[in-house]
Amino acid sequence: MSSSPLAELYLQYVDCLNARTLDSLGSYVRDDVRRNGETVHLAGYRELLHNDFRRIPDLRFSIELLVADATHVAARLAFDCTPVGEFLGLAVDGRRVAFYENVFYTYVDGKIADVLSIIDTDSIRAQLLGPAAHPPA
Amino acid sequence: MSSSPLAELYLQYVDCLNARTLDSLGSYVRDDVRRNGETVHLAGYRELLHNDFRRIPDLRFSIELLVADATHVAARLAFDCTPVGEFLGLAVDGRRVAFYENVFYTYVDGKIADVLSIIDTDSIRAQLLGPAAHPPA
Repeated sequence: MSSSPLAELYLQYVDCLNARTLDSLGSYVRDDVRRNGETVHLAGYRELLHNDFRRIPDLRFSIELLVADATHVAARLAFDCTPVGEFLGLAVDGRRVAFYENVFYTYVDGKIADVLSIIDTDSIRAQLLGPAAHPPA
Repeated sequence: MSSSPLAELYLQYVDCLNARTLDSLGSYVRDDVRRNGETVHLAGYRELLHNDFRRIPDLRFSIELLVADATHVAARLAFDCTPVGEFLGLAVDGRRVAFYENVFYTYVDGKIADVLSIIDTDSIRAQLLGPAAHPPA
């Protein structure tokens, strides 16, 4: 695991998410934060997380890989959870799904300024619908 | 962009892919390489790339972000290409698609030993089938 100062800041950010102390999210995320190309602002980012916690009561962020340099953090996050109702357009309805997110963060002045995330939704589809729904690699 | 020695090795690997000089792939990739949890070996990895170039004649790897430390490289790769026939289970049939891959590489003794990749297939689906096929974020 990286020893960059940003790696330490990122661990604190993930601790904040897992403690669900979203009132302190502004310590780690800039007010003008962008996510996947859209400026969502800190308030919108917090609302996205609130929604995630509502839809996935047992949501927990586990860092499987963390690579950091002077300006960026890249993380592979592992999830193993049971969303209620619909998740990513799929009727999960309380079934357990395990999946990964590969995500890049650009830091500016010690806070997250830009998030570029991809979730392996094909794997979630395959778990819910069976291998036939999983496109060939 | 990272100044780690692995960053330089990774740039050479991507140059090798874009030059399609796959005979020299073994300079950058270990014989026991794993990809998304499966040991595919160098020969299998080369065959995957040959297949990609067959199915996507104008395939080109563009590095949008690169984060490296002493043991790992993380890259966000951008693609803008026109697959012939089927791609990722979708009948692309020569239409142009633009998409990203967020991918982590573990290096051992200066060569790629493990690849953990996620492609934003939902975005490709949305481009081919329209926004209705794109699950809500």
